[in-house]
Amino acid sequence: MQVRTDLAVEATGMQEESIAGIESETEEKDRIRIDRIRIKSPDAAERVGKPCGNYVTITVRDLSENDRDEYEEACMCVAKELGDILNIEENASVLAVGLGNEHITADSIGPKCVKNLLVTRHIKEIMPDEVDESVRSVSALSPGVMAFTGIETSEIVRGVIEKTKPDTVIAIDALASRSMSRLGRTIQIADTGINPGSGVGNNRKELSEKTLGVKVIAIGVPMVVDAVTVALDAMEATGADEDEIHTFFETYKRMEPMNADMVVTPKDVDSLSSQSARIIANGINLALQRALDREDIDRYGHF
Amino acid sequence: MQVRTDLAVEATGMQEESIAGIESETEEKDRIRIDRIRIKSPDAAERVGKPCGNYVTITVRDLSENDRDEYEEACMCVAKELGDILNIEENASVLAVGLGNEHITADSIGPKCVKNLLVTRHIKEIMPDEVDESVRSVSALSPGVMAFTGIETSEIVRGVIEKTKPDTVIAIDALASRSMSRLGRTIQIADTGINPGSGVGNNRKELSEKTLGVKVIAIGVPMVVDAVTVALDAMEATGADEDEIHTFFETYKRMEPMNADMVVTPKDVDSLSSQSARIIANGINLALQRALDREDIDRYGHF
Amino acid sequence: MQVRTDLAVEATGMQEESIAGIESETEEKDRIRIDRIRIKSPDAAERVGKPCGNYVTITVRDLSENDRDEYEEACMCVAKELGDILNIEENASVLAVGLGNEHITADSIGPKCVKNLLVTRHIKEIMPDEVDESVRSVSALSPGVMAFTGIETSEIVRGVIEKTKPDTVIAIDALASRSMSRLGRTIQIADTGINPGSGVGNNRKELSEKTLGVKVIAIGVPMVVDAVTVALDAMEATGADEDEIHTFFETYKRMEPMNADMVVTPKDVDSLSSQSARIIANGINLALQRALDREDIDRYGHF
Amino acid sequence: MQVRTDLAVEATGMQEESIAGIESETEEKDRIRIDRIRIKSPDAAERVGKPCGNYVTITVRDLSENDRDEYEEACMCVAKELGDILNIEENASVLAVGLGNEHITADSIGPKCVKNLLVTRHIKEIMPDEVDESVRSVSALSPGVMAFTGIETSEIVRGVIEKTKPDTVIAIDALASRSMSRLGRTIQIADTGINPGSGVGNNRKELSEKTLGVKVIAIGVPMVVDAVTVALDAMEATGADEDEIHTFFETYKRMEPMNADMVVTPKDVDSLSSQSARIIANGINLALQRALDREDIDRYGHF
Repeated sequence: MQVRTDLAVEATGMQEESIAGIESETEEKDRIRIDRIRIKSPDAAERVGKPCGNYVTITVRDLSENDRDEYEEACMCVAKELGDILNIEENASVLAVGLGNEHITADSIGPKCVKNLLVTRHIKEIMPDEVDESVRSVSALSPGVMAFTGIETSEIVRGVIEKTKPDTVIAIDALASRSMSRLGRTIQIADTGINPGSGVGNNRKELSEKTLGVKVIAIGVPMVVDAVTVALDAMEATGADEDEIHTFFETYKRMEPMNADMVVTPKDVDSLSSQSARIIANGINLALQRALDREDIDRYGHF
Repeated sequence: MQVRTDLAVEATGMQEESIAGIESETEEKDRIRIDRIRIKSPDAAERVGKPCGNYVTITVRDLSENDRDEYEEACMCVAKELGDILNIEENASVLAVGLGNEHITADSIGPKCVKNLLVTRHIKEIMPDEVDESVRSVSALSPGVMAFTGIETSEIVRGVIEKTKPDTVIAIDALASRSMSRLGRTIQIADTGINPGSGVGNNRKELSEKTLGVKVIAIGVPMVVDAVTVALDAMEATGADEDEIHTFFETYKRMEPMNADMVVTPKDVDSLSSQSARIIANGINLALQRALDREDIDRYGHF
Repeated sequence: MQVRTDLAVEATGMQEESIAGIESETEEKDRIRIDRIRIKSPDAAERVGKPCGNYVTITVRDLSENDRDEYEEACMCVAKELGDILNIEENASVLAVGLGNEHITADSIGPKCVKNLLVTRHIKEIMPDEVDESVRSVSALSPGVMAFTGIETSEIVRGVIEKTKPDTVIAIDALASRSMSRLGRTIQIADTGINPGSGVGNNRKELSEKTLGVKVIAIGVPMVVDAVTVALDAMEATGADEDEIHTFFETYKRMEPMNADMVVTPKDVDSLSSQSARIIANGINLALQRALDREDIDRYGHF
Repeated sequence: MQVRTDLAVEATGMQEESIAGIESETEEKDRIRIDRIRIKSPDAAERVGKPCGNYVTITVRDLSENDRDEYEEACMCVAKELGDILNIEENASVLAVGLGNEHITADSIGPKCVKNLLVTRHIKEIMPDEVDESVRSVSALSPGVMAFTGIETSEIVRGVIEKTKPDTVIAIDALASRSMSRLGRTIQIADTGINPGSGVGNNRKELSEKTLGVKVIAIGVPMVVDAVTVALDAMEATGADEDEIHTFFETYKRMEPMNADMVVTPKDVDSLSSQSARIIANGINLALQRALDREDIDRYGHF
């Protein structure tokens, strides 16, 4: 009877009392709110349904508005939080993986994001004298979705990791939220990797240090809520009790098997996903390359 | 307390008793069901919230399945029903208008469809001796959405009509349905034009004989349902009475203003919209050009 | 025996002596060179094959390099030169028209450019109190190409002009150059409109004050050279005389009729066309809206 | 002084006399011509600059024309020739690799092609009981280009091969031709893999049995000619002798270093590349899946 969410801030916030083994802190800035959650004990992890680790949630007012200051602050904030959670050595190399299906707008953040990354690995390999030593080696991959490749995304990523030996993977993906008000407004950075059932397509296998053998940072933005969420909101708003909600769930499942394949998404999902993808890309570029700063925002889009 | 639907078959079917002034008939084929509804009196039109005219609804089992026979039957069926409802003279010219935003998958049927039309007007104008007389003059336009053009779609279409003088307009658009089970499975053909509030974006002005001065046939496929639909389904399924539903609606409206900007859409919306766009395009090509038949399906895509 | 060029700076420069009725001046900046040519007499116009009017050519070193300073200077320079040549009243309205085929990379500058414009007309029309009076009314259109619409681009534009009554049209298009070294490095702004034979597709009708009834500013970037140019360069480089070149032209025409449908284009045409489209869009935004400045560069892309 | 070509039929045909160690045969059909070349000895391979192996060249009249019969014949012909050259066991698995940059129209055949393949590997792995045993396991990958990934394409492919263990790789790529008349009209199938310098981007590493450890079939369509080709054609047409041509080459190289980055491409490169990609995809589908025949052409496009 649990509603799916990929956000730790929602999973932990849904618990009524505070939970042993979970630490959290909140930082309110002018326009941006940052929640840092640490799930420390396996007990707590099991209770909230998220693996142990650090989860940073950055919440802005509205990414779809054309407020350049807020946009740049969001980029800087992603860079700062990602830098802290990455905590990698100066010359460590990174592989960025854009997950999802670029042909479904709500699922396209990952592929869109990697198109705006500053990719340097080939230059460092082929013309090492051409680039400053301080430039970090960054490679990028959009592996596509299993329906089109016939291959588990994790298999493709593992194959490429074995050949290119990055020190860290950053995986970018669209997420599912419990709340409509978070869509396109929240960016989650986690050092736990990507776990099954995430995103719009729910058949992705885990991408984590356990499965890939290297540290995996996951960055995502919620772009959909499960359709059933709307129904639950409705019932709660009208004071349905737990029995009624249970009955609903049972009925709902029988009612229309295809409901499971429905998602709720904002009407302006196209600009939301493009904007989010660019903010994450800028944040990654700034976090990985020391020589870049706020003036370099939006400088490395291929298109 | 009314839930939005662009389908006459839903608007009329929602009424409990049969309505004076509305005629309907149903034809069941092997894999396809056709509902033909005629709204005859202004009274009936007002009751169901749809203008007087003819509405044909073609329902298939599942367009996303790769069943070539069903696909071709759907194309032939659209051609046949469109031909009947068009009822135009042999040498009448047609302008096809693909409405919607090609960057939002669920709203992209119109622009995708016109890319698969056999366009002939320029050949007939420039090299009339090169084409057989029986070839009908067809032009096509994707006017874009107001957020990107700054211009009402209807203004663009009217401007082009005045310059090119087509005898008939066929407008293709994504629709909203009341029922999730209809998404990507139903094609509606109507001789009433496109009316406000249709589609994913609800700010389109009417495109009809009244506003454009020529006959307007509308073809659409439901690709979204309002998020509130899911909530209502839930409440009905659990036996909520009318008072409870009313309370819910009031609460819901206050709850989250942004809910109004949420839509429910199938996860495989990309293949559904591409497939639907191609079926409609094939149907239009076959209906308009006498020389084409089943073997010419899928022959005229630009991409 | 004339080789096609859409650039006045090439057409006039090909003449050996200076031509009566043509004025020109050159401004060299740090990284950017500006040539301003004025064709004043019909005689001169006929000699160089370009209509009377003003042509400004902005030449940068290399748009494909990721030099942010050069990029922003190019944007500012387009804004300044366009502002001078536009010379419009404070509250005059503008329609931007993106010409060309977005599916052919070398021909996609126009459609790509209008996607990055700040479009305001609908806001001023629908919610005039929401926007400051100083905001200029800007609308934008990508009419598509005749092969897909069946309609002359000029007919579509004229129809939309009659409905929306802009004071000025800005038309953006890909151009053909005589010289490979200019591809993607030169931006031409002219107050003479767009003339037949321009661009990658050579079947466009004139878009000018004469045909549209409003002032037409044309902005373009050369993205192709005719294949025959390479041959001529070769012959000249090896010292062929005029007779030999004449013989070649005759032979060439007979040789392969499809040669006429070949163009030479840079291998990195994708990033060149995207970059050029963004520079022009930024220049237009800055020229049209007084409230914007260098900090607002790249702020208004839809995607 | 050699002009680049990826076509064995051109490389061998350029030799004046017949070459020991090369066998060839030609089959003329109604609308299609098939040249089968076998380079048997290392000596011959070195002379023509192509590795030992089999090269089949299918030449049609014009793929851009909308002649459905010719289109389907081309699909069937690719299926037949590919089947012969593949010569794989009934249950052997295949990985199709779409090489090239989907954002450059002339280089997009590979990525476009794999979008139209019938991909089955995941179904066979996850739900083996759902598919008939006769269905061959097919997976597909568009690895992207090194400028965007920072990784050699061959490294990505090798990584995926090691994880997924296909028996054979089919690599699809855009090619360079010596002759403008071949662009978009010729399909080459070779059992030698893809070799350096092929395609629009010339920095790809070899993809062959030697480097990948599995059989590699390469399928390609010429979409560009080197700009220098046009110059050479010109000189030959005007009777230039070898010395003059040599002088030209020397001059040409000094003249404009950027010439090397120029290619000649047909104006209708968008429809040519889409059409070619679909023909190859249909050919692959028909060659790999015994249950499919002519009626299944165009059935498996994702978009």
